[in-house]
Amino acid sequence: MHPYISRYHYNVEPFTEDALGNLSWGRLGNLILRCASLHAGEHGFGFDDMVKQGRVWVLSRLVIEMDEMPRTNDDLYIETWVGRAYRRFTDRHFSVLRADGTAYGHATSVWALIDLQTRQSADLEALPDGGLQPFVVADRPLPIAPPSRLPRLADSRPVATHKAAFTDLDINGHVNSIRLLEMILDRFTLEELRQQPPHRIEMAYSAEGYAGDELRIYMEPPVDGVRQFEIRKGEATTVVKGSIQ
Amino acid sequence: MHPYISRYHYNVEPFTEDALGNLSWGRLGNLILRCASLHAGEHGFGFDDMVKQGRVWVLSRLVIEMDEMPRTNDDLYIETWVGRAYRRFTDRHFSVLRADGTAYGHATSVWALIDLQTRQSADLEALPDGGLQPFVVADRPLPIAPPSRLPRLADSRPVATHKAAFTDLDINGHVNSIRLLEMILDRFTLEELRQQPPHRIEMAYSAEGYAGDELRIYMEPPVDGVRQFEIRKGEATTVVKGSIQ
Repeated sequence: MHPYISRYHYNVEPFTEDALGNLSWGRLGNLILRCASLHAGEHGFGFDDMVKQGRVWVLSRLVIEMDEMPRTNDDLYIETWVGRAYRRFTDRHFSVLRADGTAYGHATSVWALIDLQTRQSADLEALPDGGLQPFVVADRPLPIAPPSRLPRLADSRPVATHKAAFTDLDINGHVNSIRLLEMILDRFTLEELRQQPPHRIEMAYSAEGYAGDELRIYMEPPVDGVRQFEIRKGEATTVVKGSIQ
Repeated sequence: MHPYISRYHYNVEPFTEDALGNLSWGRLGNLILRCASLHAGEHGFGFDDMVKQGRVWVLSRLVIEMDEMPRTNDDLYIETWVGRAYRRFTDRHFSVLRADGTAYGHATSVWALIDLQTRQSADLEALPDGGLQPFVVADRPLPIAPPSRLPRLADSRPVATHKAAFTDLDINGHVNSIRLLEMILDRFTLEELRQQPPHRIEMAYSAEGYAGDELRIYMEPPVDGVRQFEIRKGEATTVVKGSIQ
């Protein structure tokens, strides 16, 4: 194993599945973010290290593409590595593997490093000691398509609203990235998800949601099997845009 | 360690905390149920074993009482054992421990074994081979008060409603027990939970919720620091009653 690729083992314990008997997308998304944080911490650029510099990692894009979902009692292994660090963003990739090394699927994410005072993102090519550059694993390409350009939604009516509350929040008091993904899944019926399980979900985060925010969920009709969605707070502020295939 | 007490190790990984920096009640509740299932499986009366008999374990009561919550990076150890098996119910207890053996808190639960055909509960004293009786750990008492009698709520107006959706469901297609607990927590503001963190939560489950059910949440004013709550589907059917202290 490459020294800058980390591998984490999980098991699909009972009560972590969805109604289809698969590891739920919410838990998978959460595990992916946990691995990101663990890996960054191991290499000196984790949450605690950044807070000491008055900075915090902010998730900008998340793409998860699964050929198959792990099921009850399955072991899964998440490998993660830094794919790139360029200007104000860094790409982090993930493979979700079976014990035999074959892939359930893959994921990728884009992060910015935000100064807590100025709210500006740091230039990741100008950090001391080369910043993330030494940790980039250039020879392991991402096996799925990168994040796509997300079109502007037709300004339709929200299909649902949700008032953000305590259990939606992460440790920073923001509506957590994965709960937003779950809000999208909740727009589908069990039968729809059984017949057409999601294959690829893209999320492009643009603003934080807070407790009490009235989140409005917009969703377009499917085009070539892909549905665009958006979650806004108020009329105009996009919290996340994305697509589900 | 007693051969019929099992101990499971978890760690509060990043992204598993709530906005107060504690392991979230939702995740803790989920871990407790996971340990219940793992322990039952190890001793031959788990989910799979029961399904082969055409039966399924149904959670009737859950009480969690925490003096302190584990925080980021903390290790926690959940010990679980069968406390009793009597007529149509069995008690299962839990201790949530630190690495040094001191307790964060404890929990207890009551389960019935339901026949999938008749929906009747089995007599747990009349199972073949003594049923659960050989696994009862009689000499380790539960260190917290047992489930209390829950009064009937004054028939007030719901404080919130929630339409049950896909990510609320467990593998059986029922609204999951812990999501119901989260719906109660969501009735409090972040500030209220910061100033008066929950110490003890009791849940008494009586009917299953399904996708599409319009769940109505009722909550009484506090009496001696305890608030009674109820979640109903429709006007009359109680899904869960409980209290939060």
